[in-house]
Order: sequence, then C-alpha cells, then structure tokens
Amino acid sequence: MVKGSMKKRGLLGVDIGGTKLAVALEVDGERIMRKEPIPGEGYPSEVIDRVVTIARELTADSPAEAVGISIGGPLDHAAGRILDFPHLPDWIDIPLAEILAERLELPVALDNDANLGALAEYRHAVSNNLADPTLPFVYLTLSTGIGGGIIIDGGLLHGVRTGAGELGHITVAPNGPLCPCGNRGCLERMASGTHIGNRAREMVKESRTLGGWMIEREGGYIDAITAETVVAGYRAGDPLATEIWLDAVGALSIGLGSIIHVLAPGTIVLGGGLSLAGTALLDPLQEALKRHVFYVRLDMIEVATARLGHDSALLGALELAGEMTVE
Amino acid sequence: MVKGSMKKRGLLGVDIGGTKLAVALEVDGERIMRKEPIPGEGYPSEVIDRVVTIARELTADSPAEAVGISIGGPLDHAAGRILDFPHLPDWIDIPLAEILAERLELPVALDNDANLGALAEYRHAVSNNLADPTLPFVYLTLSTGIGGGIIIDGGLLHGVRTGAGELGHITVAPNGPLCPCGNRGCLERMASGTHIGNRAREMVKESRTLGGWMIEREGGYIDAITAETVVAGYRAGDPLATEIWLDAVGALSIGLGSIIHVLAPGTIVLGGGLSLAGTALLDPLQEALKRHVFYVRLDMIEVATARLGHDSALLGALELAGEMTVE
Repeated sequence: MVKGSMKKRGLLGVDIGGTKLAVALEVDGERIMRKEPIPGEGYPSEVIDRVVTIARELTADSPAEAVGISIGGPLDHAAGRILDFPHLPDWIDIPLAEILAERLELPVALDNDANLGALAEYRHAVSNNLADPTLPFVYLTLSTGIGGGIIIDGGLLHGVRTGAGELGHITVAPNGPLCPCGNRGCLERMASGTHIGNRAREMVKESRTLGGWMIEREGGYIDAITAETVVAGYRAGDPLATEIWLDAVGALSIGLGSIIHVLAPGTIVLGGGLSLAGTALLDPLQEALKRHVFYVRLDMIEVATARLGHDSALLGALELAGEMTVE
Repeated sequence: MVKGSMKKRGLLGVDIGGTKLAVALEVDGERIMRKEPIPGEGYPSEVIDRVVTIARELTADSPAEAVGISIGGPLDHAAGRILDFPHLPDWIDIPLAEILAERLELPVALDNDANLGALAEYRHAVSNNLADPTLPFVYLTLSTGIGGGIIIDGGLLHGVRTGAGELGHITVAPNGPLCPCGNRGCLERMASGTHIGNRAREMVKESRTLGGWMIEREGGYIDAITAETVVAGYRAGDPLATEIWLDAVGALSIGLGSIIHVLAPGTIVLGGGLSLAGTALLDPLQEALKRHVFYVRLDMIEVATARLGHDSALLGALELAGEMTVE
C-alpha cells in the first residue's frame, strides 16, 4: 500500500498584502508562519527579495516542494502574472511566478486572495452538501471590500483572465451611487464594511439624537464609529444602527440572490470582518433571502460564516502549493 | 484503430412543451422529427402514451439506444422526476424517466428546456473561447420568459435540485414591479418579450401620438403590438419604441453584468424570439455592458445570438441521449 518513500513534503505559502507580508512553511501538517510589514516602499524587487530570504530561512532544514502565492489584485493565474496591485508601487505586469520559480528553484503558482480564501474555507468547511462535488461552493469575503471565490468539482472557477468570482461588483442598486469600479450600486458599494461605517458616520452627523447610542459607545468620537459599532447597535436594538445594518444585509441578500439564481450552490460561506457578526448577520440574511429566491431550493443551501480567520488566503496559498505536488 | 463494430447508433429526443410535443430520432447524424399538439387534455398518462407510440413508430426499423427528454418546468434531473409542469394538468412529482425507461426498455434522462437548449447551442457554437473548456458557456433564452443554462468543462451545471441557470430571476430592479415568482424586478419581469409587449401597449394607450408609428405598423390594432413591433420601431428610429427597447436592453445588461461578475464566461449565447433582433440586440447590449463591467475583461467575452432555432431544446435532448451511450 505504500507508494514510494514516506518523505516529508514541505509546502511554502506566501500572502502579499497591501501592508503585510506573510510566509508559511507546512511540513506534515505542522506550520511555521512569519508575518511582518511589507518591506521598504513595497516595490516588487524589495518584496521579492524579502520573500526569497524568508523562504530560504524557513526551508533551511526542511526543503519545500512547491510555492503558492496569494495577492489581492488583478492577475492572470494561468500565466502566473500580477496584472496590477494598486496597493503597492510599480506592481504592474509582473511575471511573479516565473521570477520566484527561478530564484527558489521550485514550482510556483499564484491566485488572488479571495480565490485562495475560498479554497482554504472549502477544504475546512462543514456542510452536508460538500459530499456532492458538483454542487458549487461559494465564498464571499465581507471586509473593507467584498470579494469572492467559486469552487466547482473541487477546483476553483477562474473564467476569462481569472475574472470569475468578482462577487462584490454584482449590481444590487442600479440607480445607486457610483462604485469606484465605474458601475453603479455594486454590492461592495452598498454592503462593505467601509460603506457601512461611512454611512453610519454620515447619518450620526446628521442627527446626533438618533446617533446617540453609537456616539456613546465610541466614547463621544463620531469618527471612531465603524461597521462593528453598527453591528453592536443592531444587537442592542438601537434603531439607527438597525436601519443601517438591515439596509446592508438587504443589499447583500439581493446580490446573494442573484448568485443563487446563477449557481444554485450547495454551500455559501461568508468570511471577512463582517462575518464576525455571526447570527446578527446570518439570521436577517436568511429572512431577506426568502424575499428574493423562489425558484431555487433555498432550504437546501447551507449558509454559514467562515471557519478560518485572517489567515485564510495564506492557508489557501498552502493548498495551492499542495495541488502542484499531487502527481 | 477500429473499436468494436461500426453499428448505427440511434438516439431519441423528446420535447414536451405547454402546447406542443416533439419527438426526434437521430441515426448517424440523420434526423427524423415529429411535431404535433399535446394530445388530449395533456394529462401525464395521455402524453406518455403518445410519446411511447411515436417512439415505437420511429424506431420500428432503427432501434434507439437511449432517450433524452426536455420539459419546461422544475425537475430533479438526477432523480429523473418532473416536480411541477404548470402548463399541463396533474404534472406534479412524476417519475417520468423511470416510467419511460420501463415502457421503452431504454435508458432515459431528462433535463429542463433551457439547460438542453444550452447544451445544443454549446455543441453548435462558434467561439474562440470554446477551445478552453474551463471558461464557462452561458446560454440565455429571451422569449415570453427568460431562462438559461450554464456549461462548465463540457457539462451542464445543475446545482441544488437542478436550480442553476435560473437567470431570468436575477434581480435587476430591486424596487421594481413584482415578478410572478415572488421577487421584485427580476430580469424576466423587466426584459422578457411578454414584458416588452405589455409595456409598449400600455404606453401607446397612454399616448397615441407618441405611439403612432407602432399603431400604424400593426394596421391600427394596438393589441397587435408585440416585442417584435418594438424591435422594428427601434430599427426605424421611432422614439417611443427606442425608449422601450433600450430600457429592456439596459435591464438585460444589468443581469448579464451580474452573471459576468460571477462566472466570467468565455462565451454568452442569446436565444429565444428576442435574439432574432440580431445586431439590434447585440450592439446596444455591448454598449450597455461597458457601463457595468470593469473588473472582468469584457473584450475577451464572445457574445452572440443563437445558431439553432425553435428546436434547440429537442436537439439538446438528443445530445443528452448521446451522452448516455458514451461508455
């Protein structure tokens, strides 16, 4: 039953963020992680040098077999190229997989952070519907922005130029405000943590009476009000916070309704900071979905919050590395 | 190089519609079709008896190996059951595949008409993006209603209880009119042929001056105005027809934009009666999509009208039968 030698299989995962760099080595299920600020000004040469240095340090005793990389911007996963990473300077059309493969002498693959978050959550998810791999798995990250990833038959759906799963840019309010992307009323524009915080501060400034609960919670500092304040206010029954939160959940339910009519997924996992709201998110969301979805069996779709935390993209990068070592 | 005998492979396709029944036998690429009204009152026993009779007549000389069935209502393709076909009486929870398999002594599979239309159009489509089977293929049928089908890696995406591809019920106008499904502002409610015709007749009745061109085209009969009149008016430059048509195309562009952000498909094929508008549909649609889609490479997505006509679901049923005979 034993095929070949039982040698230890090392995998490297890298997560390049706008402010943080994380690298992990996994050997036999044991993980070492290094997290630090993006080095220097964040130019490609600086970041790549630092990734190479950390990777060599981590693998000094346990050599790795493959590297998976997560980054939060437009990329071409098949070509291994970063097309544009606007959070750092000069990250335009960088053949990152090729550069790192040459310097580390290892196979390297990359994908975006939402897709890799989806992959990691999929591998760690608990849902009766996962037994049937043909039922799509949808991951939505509800954070400062809204992103997503879709898994079908055990693999990520990429579409043209890694464009699938741009779930934050589904239209949920056709005559709504402009989204920085160029469209109007994108899901991200109506339900992201950023939007919820902005809206709460605006409304509180308009009426300090109505906003009294939220102002008090933040010690009198209106500018300290965030989406987290709104969730706390919703839980406490504050009317203004409830209005803002249910509006955002309503926008999410419209977007999720459209996703459901396209994919009829078996499982939907919600991650990112807003998912920490737990039942304060899931309960009103399930109620709102019942107003939008009739021709797909909503009762057969499992909707849950994410099981992994901030490291989901890094863990997904390790999963990606692992896929390269499967013969 | 020859595997086994080169015997003729016969396939049966059946399309059960609200008013018409069609059965086709395909042997070596040659097709015989029979189309007739739904027999009697359309009760399951009547329709099933008639399908069996026609199938036996068609296969008297060339036996078939498998049967594919198309029907236009909610079904469970995996169980081979019709859940509800509201166009005909008593079609509730009918194990149609099992019944026909027993009576015809052949393997039988079924799927809904939009999915099988998608399958047939996919097999007959011309698109550079079809070379990469991982790029999703989307079919939308724009008719009295709006339905759809999605193909990934060469196979239909079904989702929970055959619910994937319910593209007519994506929300495109959250505060819009109620759709018979229960949701508000569904794509079908805002852009189907039925809706376009209704809206045109309403507006013409409100202003016979503005509606003059359309009234005249239909010989003075306002009730003869349909979506086809609207398309003709748009082509002729009539202002009211143009407004109605571009509103519908705009709604379609919002729905299609959401589909694109989910799937990033390589190919989108538009079928059904409205697709006969050709460039009068495709040109303004492409313009409108540019206002909604920025983070997926729209220029890499091929959007085209369907190549098959009314028989696409029947042809898809033959494709489905063919899939059962592949060892």
